[in-house]
Amino acid sequence: MLCIMGTIRLPADRMAAARAPMAAMIAATRDEAGCLEYAFAEDVLDPGLIRVSERWTDRQALDAHAASAHMRAWRAALREIGVLDRDLTLYDIGHPRPL
Amino acid sequence: MLCIMGTIRLPADRMAAARAPMAAMIAATRDEAGCLEYAFAEDVLDPGLIRVSERWTDRQALDAHAASAHMRAWRAALREIGVLDRDLTLYDIGHPRPL
Repeated sequence: MLCIMGTIRLPADRMAAARAPMAAMIAATRDEAGCLEYAFAEDVLDPGLIRVSERWTDRQALDAHAASAHMRAWRAALREIGVLDRDLTLYDIGHPRPL
Repeated sequence: MLCIMGTIRLPADRMAAARAPMAAMIAATRDEAGCLEYAFAEDVLDPGLIRVSERWTDRQALDAHAASAHMRAWRAALREIGVLDRDLTLYDIGHPRPL
């Protein structure tokens, strides 16, 4: 299993404009084979900082996601919104453990 | 390395009341030995759904966090705020990989 954790920084005053493209990207990605979790959330202390949470079954699923039409549309939307930074990290993860 | 991903659901109309306790919990936790990442973010499509992102060096650091005074204060604040649900999962994670 793989996870991606990290951030996308948008201008805080562009969050309203970002909402529809984010909703489209989330819906299309959650429908992909191998997508276990895909969410965007805005940091509670830092407006405009989007925290990304993703889990995927394997690299093949993630590669298909990267090559998808909705990923191209999302990247175009990010440019139009004026994305300021992107800092995402991929990790291998093991099975869940008791907390 | 360990990560925790998951959610805490608050009543959407209590988000403003939650902000100060969240800020205190985040600041105190980021100061802990072994804390690599600790953030709360509100789902962009689901008001009141807090997405939690944590990374820790090891189980010992996480156990100390669980036993900390700020964790007790945070749990009390959550009860006072009227927390509705909590769904957090712990995973072992490997070294970062190229995205």
